[in-house]
Amino acid sequence: MDHVKHLRCMTCGAVVESDVDGRGALTCPSCGSLGILDVVYDYDAITRRIGGDKGRDAGREAFGATGEGSMWRYLPFLPVDPAWERPPLRVGWTPLYDARQLARALDARSVFVKDEGVNPTASLKDRASAIAAVRAKAAGRRVVACASTGNAASSLAGCAASMGLRSCIFVPRRAPRGKLMQLLMYGATVVSVDGSYHDAFSLSATAIDKWGWYNRNAAINPYLVEGKKTVSFEICEQLEWQLPDWVAVAVGDGCTIAGVYKGFHDFRMTGLITRIPRILGVQAAGCQPIVEAFKSGADRVRAWPENTLADSIAVGVPRNPTKALRAVGLSGGHMIAVTDEEILRAMRLLGSTTGVFAEPAGAASLAGLIAAFDSGVIDRSEKVVVIATGNGLKDIANAERAAPPPIEVGPGMGELERALGARAGDLLTQEE
Amino acid sequence: MDHVKHLRCMTCGAVVESDVDGRGALTCPSCGSLGILDVVYDYDAITRRIGGDKGRDAGREAFGATGEGSMWRYLPFLPVDPAWERPPLRVGWTPLYDARQLARALDARSVFVKDEGVNPTASLKDRASAIAAVRAKAAGRRVVACASTGNAASSLAGCAASMGLRSCIFVPRRAPRGKLMQLLMYGATVVSVDGSYHDAFSLSATAIDKWGWYNRNAAINPYLVEGKKTVSFEICEQLEWQLPDWVAVAVGDGCTIAGVYKGFHDFRMTGLITRIPRILGVQAAGCQPIVEAFKSGADRVRAWPENTLADSIAVGVPRNPTKALRAVGLSGGHMIAVTDEEILRAMRLLGSTTGVFAEPAGAASLAGLIAAFDSGVIDRSEKVVVIATGNGLKDIANAERAAPPPIEVGPGMGELERALGARAGDLLTQEE
Repeated sequence: MDHVKHLRCMTCGAVVESDVDGRGALTCPSCGSLGILDVVYDYDAITRRIGGDKGRDAGREAFGATGEGSMWRYLPFLPVDPAWERPPLRVGWTPLYDARQLARALDARSVFVKDEGVNPTASLKDRASAIAAVRAKAAGRRVVACASTGNAASSLAGCAASMGLRSCIFVPRRAPRGKLMQLLMYGATVVSVDGSYHDAFSLSATAIDKWGWYNRNAAINPYLVEGKKTVSFEICEQLEWQLPDWVAVAVGDGCTIAGVYKGFHDFRMTGLITRIPRILGVQAAGCQPIVEAFKSGADRVRAWPENTLADSIAVGVPRNPTKALRAVGLSGGHMIAVTDEEILRAMRLLGSTTGVFAEPAGAASLAGLIAAFDSGVIDRSEKVVVIATGNGLKDIANAERAAPPPIEVGPGMGELERALGARAGDLLTQEE
Repeated sequence: MDHVKHLRCMTCGAVVESDVDGRGALTCPSCGSLGILDVVYDYDAITRRIGGDKGRDAGREAFGATGEGSMWRYLPFLPVDPAWERPPLRVGWTPLYDARQLARALDARSVFVKDEGVNPTASLKDRASAIAAVRAKAAGRRVVACASTGNAASSLAGCAASMGLRSCIFVPRRAPRGKLMQLLMYGATVVSVDGSYHDAFSLSATAIDKWGWYNRNAAINPYLVEGKKTVSFEICEQLEWQLPDWVAVAVGDGCTIAGVYKGFHDFRMTGLITRIPRILGVQAAGCQPIVEAFKSGADRVRAWPENTLADSIAVGVPRNPTKALRAVGLSGGHMIAVTDEEILRAMRLLGSTTGVFAEPAGAASLAGLIAAFDSGVIDRSEKVVVIATGNGLKDIANAERAAPPPIEVGPGMGELERALGARAGDLLTQEE
């Protein structure tokens, strides 16, 4: 791992030595900051490793030449030793769709949709959990753990199962049983804590310390962002290096948007691209601590209630506002909030124009784009990528709120014709 | 489309002219048989098209050389004109996992899992619906239609949405609302018929006739099998042409297993492979008309009640028993039935050893493999591929029946340690 120089604390600036065995520090030993160490690379070493010293095109062609149809095509950019065992699950290299019908519906020039819902456990979080599982295995751990009811947990459980690692997931008692199903089917040990999410998190932290499990709490582990950044690498490649003007992504903790930025940053530092797209961070109106901080210029976020149906971004006390605001600021981007109604409308619009069914948080990025078009933050002539971070099948209950009712009829043709005429008359033109 | 010779009726042997515009006959004009016309290819023309006339290896390399990471890498084998518009959704080229932990758990030599749940609408049916959508568009239709509450319907709605086609889906009133969500989010016009599945099917048939919509009913359209066969093409390529001894797949209608056979058949006819793996068809014990016919040697199947939780294969009156029995017979394969309890156990085993969460019908193939191992039909030293046909997120209610309960604790460490000790004591070894 000669391509990793060290880690640097984004709070106090301390430099932390990198590891060669997956056992490196997760938190800052100087100031104690959690989760915001930043992995600093030797970009010259990476450039040589991908052959980029023979010219930009040579570097760009290195990824396809690996033959890897997964995030591992970017191994030279990851804090992972090539000799370490990786999960067999095919994480990443998700499709990027040129969504022409969606663009037409928005009166926009060019909108692309990155469908992260076809990852193995159906969300972008697989990219982060794959890194966690690899590093846990390299460090000789048998058990990986986190507190979460959402995509982080299911992706960790899935990646762990595929590598023969045990996983232990702490969830608050109120977690909907449907959300536990992926975890339980992947064979995770699921601990349901009679208390709040905060109680579940605290108990997980104590247990992780006590038994020495590998810690995949996003509030702690700084390597997760490094997996998430591969989504931006793919956007560059899949657009054949014709970068978008904007990338829109939903923001909860702030870790995913930080990963989006880091990917473009890494590619720029190795000369593969010359600029970073502007990043649009989207939060729900009912829970927008980072939007608020962006608007006010405050350097601390205020806690918000978690008042949105988009559970994956319902984070009242985000863990990584620093990295998130830095991503938006350095990219010349923007933050915007959208209502739940706008999210539900975006889910329907996305599904019906592209065939991509996203969970609410996954469609929030599109809702944010629409709001940004309407407010003039983004011009309709700009080229935009919308990241759909998770699959709609994860949250059928909210899809029900977004969906129109079916047309109800008896089994006779007369009634059918009247009902279709009223609700979908355009179907009734005789086709040739 | 010089590579398509004609269609042949598998009931009466009649030869039906093939089309050049997607408007060809779907049913036999001689005997009226539904859905079992068989597309007959000019294999010499296909061989030339893929360069196979320059040797087997040249033919085998043609697919990768297309750069298509989807079912369209096999375009020369499909009843689709290369000039026709195709859905932008990335259908097919799903991962095939070397499931070593699963094999170990079964004391078997070599088990592979084909994860069809990561298709765009989360099932193998996308391969069939993509063909339907392409042909509908080529034929100038604006509307595609079918009767179904399951994967056929959602895949059709998704593929249609991505191409700007309208879809009209007929479902029986009792269809669980959760199952309607994908349809509604893809913008399908969903007609809920106050009656049985049979009533919904009949009404769809009349409406399709009346308004000239494109017919994707699997009981009717013979082209769907041609899309499904690409799953076998991928198995050949992904195993680097080291074919398995067996391929296990769940059977409802009989169309999917017919597709599995057709794929191997086509590759053998063009000299890319020299033998066809034995095919294990798996049905649920509570609804096993085709297993019964296989065992008794009857040439007609008897109607069964639809008494299984694996809804995707709960087909009491299968539409394609002829093609299914032919696939099993010609491959030297076998048919087997498994109980719902065996299916639920297989779901847990698959998820916890591979990270693949399959719906009940998707895990039935694994349950069948286990039964075939236990009964000596398949030897544990043989190489086997299990096709997981659909994503478990489609059916959370049944996953709940398969999953163990979570461990419930208060927020204190003492209670946690006792509870983990009782249920997952192996987690409590201090890690280094």
